[in-house]
Amino acid sequence: MGAHMDPEEFRRNGYAVIDWIADYWTHLAERPVTPAEPPGAVAALLPAGPPEHGEPFDRILADLDPVVAPGLTHWQHPAFFGYFPANTSGPSVLGDLVSAGLGVQGMLWASAPACTEVETVMMDWLAELIDLPQRFRSSGPGGGVIQDSASSATLVATLAALHRASGGRWRGNGVDRRYRVYTSTQAHSSVEKAARIAGLGDDGVRAIEVDPKTLALRPELLRAAIEADRAAGDVPALVVATIGTTSTTAVDPLPAIGELCRAYGLWLHVDAAYAGAAAVCPELRWSHAGVEYADSYCFDPHKWLLTGFDCDAFWVADRAELTGALSVLPEFLRNAATESGAVLDYRDWQVPLGRRFRALKLWFVLRWYGAEGLRAHIRAGVDLAGRFADLVRADERFEVVAPHPFSLVCFRLRADAAPAADIPAADARNAELLARVNATGRVHLTHTRVNGRHTLRLAVGAPQTTYREVDLAWRLVERTATTLLGGAAEGNRATGAPAG
Amino acid sequence: MGAHMDPEEFRRNGYAVIDWIADYWTHLAERPVTPAEPPGAVAALLPAGPPEHGEPFDRILADLDPVVAPGLTHWQHPAFFGYFPANTSGPSVLGDLVSAGLGVQGMLWASAPACTEVETVMMDWLAELIDLPQRFRSSGPGGGVIQDSASSATLVATLAALHRASGGRWRGNGVDRRYRVYTSTQAHSSVEKAARIAGLGDDGVRAIEVDPKTLALRPELLRAAIEADRAAGDVPALVVATIGTTSTTAVDPLPAIGELCRAYGLWLHVDAAYAGAAAVCPELRWSHAGVEYADSYCFDPHKWLLTGFDCDAFWVADRAELTGALSVLPEFLRNAATESGAVLDYRDWQVPLGRRFRALKLWFVLRWYGAEGLRAHIRAGVDLAGRFADLVRADERFEVVAPHPFSLVCFRLRADAAPAADIPAADARNAELLARVNATGRVHLTHTRVNGRHTLRLAVGAPQTTYREVDLAWRLVERTATTLLGGAAEGNRATGAPAG
Repeated sequence: MGAHMDPEEFRRNGYAVIDWIADYWTHLAERPVTPAEPPGAVAALLPAGPPEHGEPFDRILADLDPVVAPGLTHWQHPAFFGYFPANTSGPSVLGDLVSAGLGVQGMLWASAPACTEVETVMMDWLAELIDLPQRFRSSGPGGGVIQDSASSATLVATLAALHRASGGRWRGNGVDRRYRVYTSTQAHSSVEKAARIAGLGDDGVRAIEVDPKTLALRPELLRAAIEADRAAGDVPALVVATIGTTSTTAVDPLPAIGELCRAYGLWLHVDAAYAGAAAVCPELRWSHAGVEYADSYCFDPHKWLLTGFDCDAFWVADRAELTGALSVLPEFLRNAATESGAVLDYRDWQVPLGRRFRALKLWFVLRWYGAEGLRAHIRAGVDLAGRFADLVRADERFEVVAPHPFSLVCFRLRADAAPAADIPAADARNAELLARVNATGRVHLTHTRVNGRHTLRLAVGAPQTTYREVDLAWRLVERTATTLLGGAAEGNRATGAPAG
Repeated sequence: MGAHMDPEEFRRNGYAVIDWIADYWTHLAERPVTPAEPPGAVAALLPAGPPEHGEPFDRILADLDPVVAPGLTHWQHPAFFGYFPANTSGPSVLGDLVSAGLGVQGMLWASAPACTEVETVMMDWLAELIDLPQRFRSSGPGGGVIQDSASSATLVATLAALHRASGGRWRGNGVDRRYRVYTSTQAHSSVEKAARIAGLGDDGVRAIEVDPKTLALRPELLRAAIEADRAAGDVPALVVATIGTTSTTAVDPLPAIGELCRAYGLWLHVDAAYAGAAAVCPELRWSHAGVEYADSYCFDPHKWLLTGFDCDAFWVADRAELTGALSVLPEFLRNAATESGAVLDYRDWQVPLGRRFRALKLWFVLRWYGAEGLRAHIRAGVDLAGRFADLVRADERFEVVAPHPFSLVCFRLRADAAPAADIPAADARNAELLARVNATGRVHLTHTRVNGRHTLRLAVGAPQTTYREVDLAWRLVERTATTLLGGAAEGNRATGAPAG
């Protein structure tokens, strides 16, 4: 007991884990999507302290079913419709497994050359798949790198923008709190978090209002905010535009925003965390119009492109601006390859020093599926969401409250015929509807606020999801609505009048 | 082609990957430790663009041997002695595999309760294993969380320190560039990087000189620096002390530093990235004397505790100070559990939003090895390093240049009998010695500078390392030295005079 696991033990135990996962996937649809246990239920099943003596592997593995699995929200469940998808796939899991087995550290080119080079090539492959402009490819001054998440991508873009805005003084002197970051009211919370981490404070972020119909940033208000800040002596430094906002998948007007960034000399970072994957399909590339204005861009293959978390794909048009901001070279990391200037050291593209061989899972996924397989996955998601939206629209008690170009549908019980005073009541009804539907454990949806009002979100993306689960979700929603609204609503439904 | 991999295909392909890894481990010692190929060699083997059609899995797997493996520095190789170890183990790889297969997202308690609860319990187990003070356990106001790396731990500690120093105004108003961070000249480069990211600039960091023998921070100089900054109107905010510096594994005097932090009201972060693992052994806990003064502390199980990267274990004494700095609550993440206050949402303890189920690999490792197995691993490393140091000391041409309490030995060809003008020559000789030894591909060592002079580092930590590889390393070093120094050195060796 307590000795290292030798390769033959690893082989035997490894088969058992592969079996456990294959069985988990086979029977996933039979599980509740969400756990029913209250906080503390899982912890209560674990001993309070670590074991003194080692345990056989089968005893460890045997605890997954009773202890871990019942305490999970199953993100890969075909009836998981919450947040955004964080899907994975067989080839991704196996690519990650190879990475874990190799256990190499890719902080420098010299510390694991293949780890860096496969990543550079995979980022170029991805750029081609989503038709990113040439300037982001590694053959020129740009290039791509894997970040853990779009939050970290936003952070490093913010730092590079501050470095540029300061004429390079930021590195040594620190941040000038007069720098300003612009984004829409619908942008991800990571913009605010990045600004705070970078020392700008929440006050350094200007949240620009959106068009109430499209929920996209209004460029004329962006221009006005930039002008007002300049007039006040503040220094506009960065715009974060979004392709596919978290709330509703709104698409900001990049061409107009890009022109403003050019005119005023601001860094443009484009956050396409979820919707970037859609650009593998030519018919969805309209969403990326204007991306050639971006100084940096990212999307998450770990959201909707079948690659397990973490895998955010981040590109810059000029990698020297990024490494100029982030490089630190202590003696213990000096090496001939770095000093030759002939290699990329990805540690200078990110916050942490260490890095895993995450490009392997991307390599496995892109080769297993091919471009055609990835397109098929995206199209399936769009189709499933479209079906759900059609079901919602066919029921007059409900409304679809935002455009749904991708695989997210935002909807709610209508309140528009009710007196204004009843909007809080309508919000409460929608919240109750969501709570009851989720309490069944058979599907999982989340919510947001759209134009201030409580809205349900159904996001499609798990590989196993089919019409069956989408129809199930709708059936649960509409039946729960019927119960919730009572007999009157049934009548309304027949007459087409809004539910009150 | 291009369809999802079904569970039975996953089972079959998964066995094949497990086999590949088991075989990789079995034959690892036969490989060169480092690749010989120049930059670009791996990339040249890959197609320039992604495939249109999917490929069978066996063809993907078949590329690992010719394309990937020859292009790697093998960090798990028994003769890998570079940097610090980044070791892994069978149970860690399999725990990570389960995590990848589940594919859950642990950003919130509500988004995967077991992911959060197993992590909280594992952090308490680890705290017990290394005998951390009660204040860091989750039963009180403190608690632990897994970060990706010690770099990120230093960053979040810096942010919490700034938040506290500002009386809470930092969140909204941004950073005051008069805040100062103190660390030793031997501290990891991540302290400088964190200060830069946080907007303090490189100028915001005071590098305090160390004792030339112990290479540990000199508290009287820390006090003087704090006083000088206060007198100049700057605001001392944070000290980062190190247990086991990257260069030489020096241990800063925590009790004296802690008293100063208390007296002047500074946040004390303790970075024990590498050496924290040593505290599983009671006989090495002297290195942690004074840790009760820390506001935050971290060590990396992914360095020397058999848990694959990434797994940095980070604790705070008051978790509200950390979440107070980092929390952001957009509508789409609101949920009843969070609002009840009864759960931990680890997204507010870190930079990114998303998080993997990394506690699983820790759970597997701690149970497979038990406390006794972990202690045995640490003791083996200390013993192997001690043997190497003895071999160095027995050869008068060499000197051990720093204390080696853990598993790192710093050594070099002596130059102390040479005239002062010859120190650059001695540095060049040591650099050449390292280059020639590494060029054999049979071992891999790295270097540093100690008191300004070029020094070789031999770091032990891979599970497969034995006396055999340590003896091989020494044989290569001393024979190369003989060649390098020529006949004269042979004579010197016999007489005990320093090589010149």
